[in-house]
Formats: sequence, structure tokens, C-alpha cells
Amino acid sequence: MSFPPFPGPLFTDLYELTMAAGYFDRQLDDTATFSLFVRPHPRRGYFVAAGLQAVVDALTRFQFSDEEIDWLAQTGQFRRGFLAHLATLRFTGSVMAMAEGEIFFPDEPVLEVTAPLIEAQIIETYLINTMGVASMLATKAARCVHAAAGRPVVDFSLRRTQGSHAGMTVARSAHIAGFSGTSNVLAGKIWGIPISGTMAHSYVTAFESETDAFEAYASLFPDNAVFLIDTYDTLQGARAAAAVGIRMREKGKALMGVRLDSGDMVALSRQVRRILDEAGLTEARIFASSGFDEYALERLVADGACIDAFGVGTRMGTSADAPYLDMVYKMVRMGDRNVRKVSEGKMTLAGEKQVFRRAAADGRFLGDVIGLRDDPPDGAAALLTPVMQKGRPVGPMPTLSEIRSRFSENFERLDDGHKRFTDPQPYPVQISDRLAEIQDGL
Amino acid sequence: MSFPPFPGPLFTDLYELTMAAGYFDRQLDDTATFSLFVRPHPRRGYFVAAGLQAVVDALTRFQFSDEEIDWLAQTGQFRRGFLAHLATLRFTGSVMAMAEGEIFFPDEPVLEVTAPLIEAQIIETYLINTMGVASMLATKAARCVHAAAGRPVVDFSLRRTQGSHAGMTVARSAHIAGFSGTSNVLAGKIWGIPISGTMAHSYVTAFESETDAFEAYASLFPDNAVFLIDTYDTLQGARAAAAVGIRMREKGKALMGVRLDSGDMVALSRQVRRILDEAGLTEARIFASSGFDEYALERLVADGACIDAFGVGTRMGTSADAPYLDMVYKMVRMGDRNVRKVSEGKMTLAGEKQVFRRAAADGRFLGDVIGLRDDPPDGAAALLTPVMQKGRPVGPMPTLSEIRSRFSENFERLDDGHKRFTDPQPYPVQISDRLAEIQDGL
Repeated sequence: MSFPPFPGPLFTDLYELTMAAGYFDRQLDDTATFSLFVRPHPRRGYFVAAGLQAVVDALTRFQFSDEEIDWLAQTGQFRRGFLAHLATLRFTGSVMAMAEGEIFFPDEPVLEVTAPLIEAQIIETYLINTMGVASMLATKAARCVHAAAGRPVVDFSLRRTQGSHAGMTVARSAHIAGFSGTSNVLAGKIWGIPISGTMAHSYVTAFESETDAFEAYASLFPDNAVFLIDTYDTLQGARAAAAVGIRMREKGKALMGVRLDSGDMVALSRQVRRILDEAGLTEARIFASSGFDEYALERLVADGACIDAFGVGTRMGTSADAPYLDMVYKMVRMGDRNVRKVSEGKMTLAGEKQVFRRAAADGRFLGDVIGLRDDPPDGAAALLTPVMQKGRPVGPMPTLSEIRSRFSENFERLDDGHKRFTDPQPYPVQISDRLAEIQDGL
Repeated sequence: MSFPPFPGPLFTDLYELTMAAGYFDRQLDDTATFSLFVRPHPRRGYFVAAGLQAVVDALTRFQFSDEEIDWLAQTGQFRRGFLAHLATLRFTGSVMAMAEGEIFFPDEPVLEVTAPLIEAQIIETYLINTMGVASMLATKAARCVHAAAGRPVVDFSLRRTQGSHAGMTVARSAHIAGFSGTSNVLAGKIWGIPISGTMAHSYVTAFESETDAFEAYASLFPDNAVFLIDTYDTLQGARAAAAVGIRMREKGKALMGVRLDSGDMVALSRQVRRILDEAGLTEARIFASSGFDEYALERLVADGACIDAFGVGTRMGTSADAPYLDMVYKMVRMGDRNVRKVSEGKMTLAGEKQVFRRAAADGRFLGDVIGLRDDPPDGAAALLTPVMQKGRPVGPMPTLSEIRSRFSENFERLDDGHKRFTDPQPYPVQISDRLAEIQDGL
């Protein structure tokens, strides 16, 4: 299930409709193929594909309502014949795409649409928006998971994502990328993602004392109590938590842990660990959350912080160091012509394509070749597979759990050099001879 | 009308619900007041309030469905009594807020909620998310409008916003901040914002030649034809456009303009202006769009580019140089106690507050005082006004056009020094003596 639901075909740039009107007027309705890909990004060595489920849902239900057609009519910009055409328009084309959870690289098509020109054109805005945000966030989340070096990471970003769609998408994309849970309750309900969270500072301040707040919480949630200990003084908070933890143990319960949310995380985490250990609470875990991103997590791990799990929020949930991908959707074939836009320094590869990935005997990815669909694979895996044909899904979509497993397996097969946060080792992507010939011929 | 609709009370961080369960268990349901404000941001001298309409809509319809309660029950985390309480929960509190279109500064409350503790707490995530993204985008858009120095600016960001909610919010927030239109058709339908757009490169490449593409477009949209001229070679494109423009004139029509989308905008715009003028098309306008933000617009204007209107996209629509605001929602009063969190270096002002703005005789804003609600205004304007009482809206909300006018009037009254993009002159914000006394007393 995708959320939020498709906002309808008017969620588009006006020029998609004026261009469609132009095509309709000239009866230009050849079959066209468009390619969706990402331009090179200075801060990203690889990308994680996500968002396909929502796109397939949207294309399956793509349809103008009578009310939408009436509204377009009263703008006075469109002729009656064109509006009648829109009223009956459905997506009848085919989609080849990488599965969600696939790793991809700049210039590689992550999705190609083949459909009558108007259908293929009119979905551009929604496609880029939806695949772009989901893939951007999955990519950012994957970097955070990598930085945490095996420690669990939880999505705490909901309050400061760029709106509700992004907030939902973060939870799903981060789960694909290996996050163990999210604070987002609705994401738990919709997708079954484990939900996580205990208390904020306001909870602690609502009680007369920290100890009162912790006691009250422990009595209600004895099996998963994590006390926030930095409301007043972190070390005093740790001692108060330890005292409550000891009383919980006397009742046969175990304090799950404490959470740090501010201050010098390396020093505080070590001091808090000592306080908990000295109270005999060696099993109590230390969670931390404090404006983290992959760069901060990498430093904390390197500096030996005694942190067992991380809550990662705003910077991850907005992909703050790279808040947009330069994802584009370009016409690559029109009727029987391979086409591309020619402009300064930006490459579009004409023709209907496939991405071939070569792997070593031990599974490690060796490099990709962008080729034509009927290029011989030579033992490489073909990453684009049919997802929709004649406007219908080809088969059931993978479950979220399958997507998560796919990413995890892929990510292990990618060399660490490509995963570096700065100056990643470039992953080899070549163009097949036959695809290159087509470009040279244009 | 707000869009997207409120996703329901499960659009929240889990800890809001666990805390609420804790409050319920201890019968801690005193009336509490929470304050929503933004922490200082190094790249922003002022902020523009937006998002209130959506918040009022959400609070008015705040209600758990049976299905949501059933789902919470099966998580096994909540007791039956608490879930029965949630099932009947409505927002019954009051809201004081700045109107949309108001200009505000760090630490000033934009909104204060007074309600039974659980109600006030549980809406936190949605409130911050919604007010945060709308205000962040209105602020970014205001900077772009200011940089364009009177030239019209149009929102072209929809395809690369962080999801559909952000895409809709950008269109509305940018309109509030003075954008003349948007490419977002759905925003045109929902809010009556003027919609704008003509053609993409794919349209031009779909025809045999640029001239064919322009002719086809002009015959269909003779009254608002803007030709995209950089698909192959910008100056050749300008000559083709001029030739078609001349033929349009012979038919009694006028070419509205051309659009540049790449290259050296200053040099190209001058050359294109000359080509159009030499063809006698002095009335044809030059539009430009090319990864602009306020910094680029300021340079183009300073360098004397011959550009009559700007399309502004991704960087504006993601607030790329500041992709999140540090907006927080803090408890400031609980029962009859003024409260605040005490932590390293971050200030929360305890107590129920008001923002007083002083103006000169000519209307210029002189400075603000954050005070208590019953501080004497001393001739200053009180910016927080009652928006909801006993869970209901106090009166009709302003129209989008009224909000836009309010911002425009406010913005004229703000000195230019505060609007600088780098190192803005700090706007004076003081704390009233009585408010300061309360802080000292804690």
C-alpha cells in the first residue's frame, strides 16, 4: 500500500497539459519512451531505488474525474476535443524498472516508461517527485545505517520532514535501508514497521521530579522503559534512572535503557555507562539522539561512544546535506527514432535501455554496463524488469520485508570504498558498444 | 481549504502516545500551555508565518477512528482505559497564533496552545511538521521575491519538492510570499493560484524542428505562447521564435515571450533581447528558469540580465540552503506553574506570552517585545490573536488573497537591512520586564 494516495492527475506542471494539448492537436501520439535517471551528485556515490510501489499504484488508477475536467474547461485554456480525450485517458503503457531496494548510479535508468506520447508525458511531474523523494531518503538512510556500523538506528524525523508525504516516505525508505524502527505511528499501522519511542522532556517536566516521571513510566511500560535523562543534569538523571532500574529489578522487571539527547555524547555516554554498570544494570542500553547524520554517527563510532542504538532525525529526514536529487525524465525514443536533448554538458542516453551488473564469484559487484535492452547480458544481471504492461501491473509487488532484504543483500555486495561519505571511490559504469553507436549516430 | 487533508492522529511520534498514557495513568490532566517557536538560524534573518489554516482544520477534526483505536489495542502497548479515553478525545483547547503572512523572528511564539495536557501534547508532531514546512517555504520564497526586485517570480518546483505535501505547500506559501503564479495545476484548482507553463524540451524534440514545434504551439495557444528556445542552440532558437512571432503578428496575435533554461543568462538574455527587438517584437518578454534561488536572482538583477520574469524551482521548493527550521513546541505552563526545560544554551521562555511589535509613524517596524499576555501594549501591535477557543475556530479564517496582502504590507514595513541574504542586520527583539522576572524566578 502506498501512502499518501495519488493526489490525482492535476498534481502536475501546467506545461505537461499544454504540451499534451499540442500533441493532441497535431495527432502526435506515437509511442514514446522516457527514461528516469539521476545526474551525478557531488555528495553521493550511490543511490537506493525506492518509490516504485507508489508509482505503480498511481499509474494503475490514473484517471481524470469529471470535476477535474470541468475545472480545466473553465480555465479557458483547453479545447473541448482535448478535454474529451483527457476524460477517457488511462495509462495503457509499459514500465521497466529497477526493483525497490536496488542500488543504482548516476545516468543509469532506474525506470523507463513506454506509452503513447501524451500518457508518457503527462505523468512526468508525479513520477519524478515520488521516485525522487523516496530514493533520496533511502539513500540518505543507507548512509546512516552504514555509519552506525551495526548498531540499530531508528527514524525520529517525523516532526521536521518537509511535510506529511515526506514524513511517511522517510519511515518506509529508512526501513528499506536498514533502520530498525520509526517513531512514526502511522507508518507502523500502514506498513508494519516497528514503532519506537518513550518520552520527551515535556513529560519529565510535567512531574514534580525526574524520579517521579521515571517511576510513573516504569509502572506503565515495565517491558520497554527508556528514560530520557538529560532534562536537568544528565549524570544526575542517570543516577535517578539507575535507582528506578534497581527497583524495577526487585519487581522482576528490567530497565530497557536510557536516552541521551544533548551534550558531549562520547564523554557522557561513558559516564552514564559506568553509572548503570555500577548499579548492576549492565543489560540496560544507552540510546542517543541529537541532530545526528551519517557524519556525526561515523565520528561517534570512531571515538568509542558507549551508545547502543541511535535515534536519527531531522538531518536524515530532510537529507539535509543533499536535499534534492537532480532526477530527470527524458524522452529517449519517439515512434521509431531514438532521440535525446542536446545541451551543454548534460548527457541523455537515447534509446530503450537496460542496466547490466557484473558480479564476482563471491557476489561482489564489479561494475555496470548501460546497454540496449537486447544487448547480450554476458552473465551479468539485468536490473530493469517489466513492472507494468498494457497499463496493468505485471505481477504482485514485493513486500516491504522483501525489499528490505534485497537492499541488505545488495549493500553487502557493494565494496566499502563506494560507501565512503566523502570522496567515494567511483563505481565503474560503462556504456555498451551498441548503445554508444546509437549516440554517435544522432 | 487545506491540502493534503490531515492524515489523522496516528501521524505522530509514538512517544506522544506513551507520554499521554503516562499522564492518563497518573490522572495528570491539568491544563497546559505549549509554545511553538523557531530557534535562531544562521541563514535566516526573519521568518514568514504560514500553515495555520491546515492546523486549525486538523485540530477541528482531531479524532481517533475505531479502526485506529483497534490497531493501537493490538500493538499490546496500551491499557484499555487509556484507549477508551483516546476514542473520545477531541481537541477542546484554545489557540493563540500569529496570522499567516505575519513576519516573525527567532524565539518569538508563533502559536500557543492551551488545553488539557494530553490534548496539547499529542498534537505536537503534526503541529511542528505542518507549521514548520509551510513557514520555511514561505520564508524561502519571500527571499526569492525580494531578490527579483519587482520582476514576477513563478513557482516551478513541483517535480523536485520533498513529496506531494511539500509540493502543494510550496505553491501556497510562495503565493503568500508574493510569487505571481505556479506551475502546479492542483494548487490552481484548490486555491485559485494563477497557473503558468508552456513547454519542455521534450515537446520541442517531439517535432521535426523547433519552428514546427513553435508554430504548433502558437496555433493552439496564441494568447499566451512562450517558446522554450534552448533545446538545440539558444540564439538559433531565438531567431526561430522571432520568425514565428512575426507570423503571429500578421495574424493579429502577439508572441508573449521566450524562455531561457540554460547557459550564461546575462549574455544570452541580452543577445536574445536584441534578436526580438530587431524583429520588432519589443513587447515579447524573456522568461528564465535555471536552478535559481535568491542568491542567483540577486546576481542576475545586479548584472543587468534582460530577464522580465523568473521561474524558480528546486532550490526554492526544498529551501535547499536551509532545508529545515529548528521549530520546537515546548511546555511553558502546567496547571498554575510556569515551566521550562533547562538545558545547555537553548532558551525556552516560560509563561503564556504575547509578541508586541512597535512601529514608527510611517509604519516601519522598530522592534518587538516578547511579553506576558497581559503586559500593557504601550501602543504596540499584539501579534498573537485568538484563533480557536474551546476547540472551535473563533471566526472565519482569512482568504489566501488576504494573507498575501498581509505579507506584502508587512514586508514593506521591514527595513531592507533585515532582508539581506547574508549577515542581515539583526531585528531588535526584547523580553518584557515581567516576562524576564518569571524566568529569573524559575
